[in-house]
Amino acid sequence: MKALILFAHGARDTRWAAPFERLRDTIRNRQPHLRVELAFLEFMSPSLPQIAVSMAADGITDITLIPVFLGQGGHVLRDLPLLLEEIHQQAPALRIALQPAVGESESVVAAMADYCLAKTAIA
Amino acid sequence: MKALILFAHGARDTRWAAPFERLRDTIRNRQPHLRVELAFLEFMSPSLPQIAVSMAADGITDITLIPVFLGQGGHVLRDLPLLLEEIHQQAPALRIALQPAVGESESVVAAMADYCLAKTAIA
Repeated sequence: MKALILFAHGARDTRWAAPFERLRDTIRNRQPHLRVELAFLEFMSPSLPQIAVSMAADGITDITLIPVFLGQGGHVLRDLPLLLEEIHQQAPALRIALQPAVGESESVVAAMADYCLAKTAIA
Repeated sequence: MKALILFAHGARDTRWAAPFERLRDTIRNRQPHLRVELAFLEFMSPSLPQIAVSMAADGITDITLIPVFLGQGGHVLRDLPLLLEEIHQQAPALRIALQPAVGESESVVAAMADYCLAKTAIA
């Protein structure tokens, strides 16, 4: 059984999570039979190991993991492999397919460019 | 004269900036006569005050400022107003139109959802 985890940074301000919740809900609406959950690096819960191990206990065998980050810095390049190792210790049979961060998607960049130009009143 | 500043977080890892540079270059290609620059909160340069004051010195009178953040947490809600005040002290005539962060855009969220679903092999 498959599932999708959207991995985001997290913040102290609860308003911060809104776009990530909208992303999760959009995906759930489009794929009602796919389990889709958020996971956070810090400040918010669940953590990535928490949700992944809980999914494994629920019978999930394959997780697609997408970092909902624009830039791939230390959080994606350094912190994430450590979290994956932690999950592997606790749920060794679970397969996790880590995908490039959303900022690597050309169509996401194009949508951001559209937004920026729409907000810029060109003289 | 108008200009667009894309305000991003910044990171120690230089690879982090790639999606933001792609966004800037996409916008430049679409609007070759619009001055478009990146600015960073930390770790990378220029800072927002540096680029805004430099634009004012170049004759820019109106800046559209877009936070290239998915979540609006402390950086957008607390740090950014302080930077705007700092700019106002140095370039009081400069008009800056702060727009909602890119993560507030429905079409950006839709593009991220498309990307996530394309990367999720549904059984």
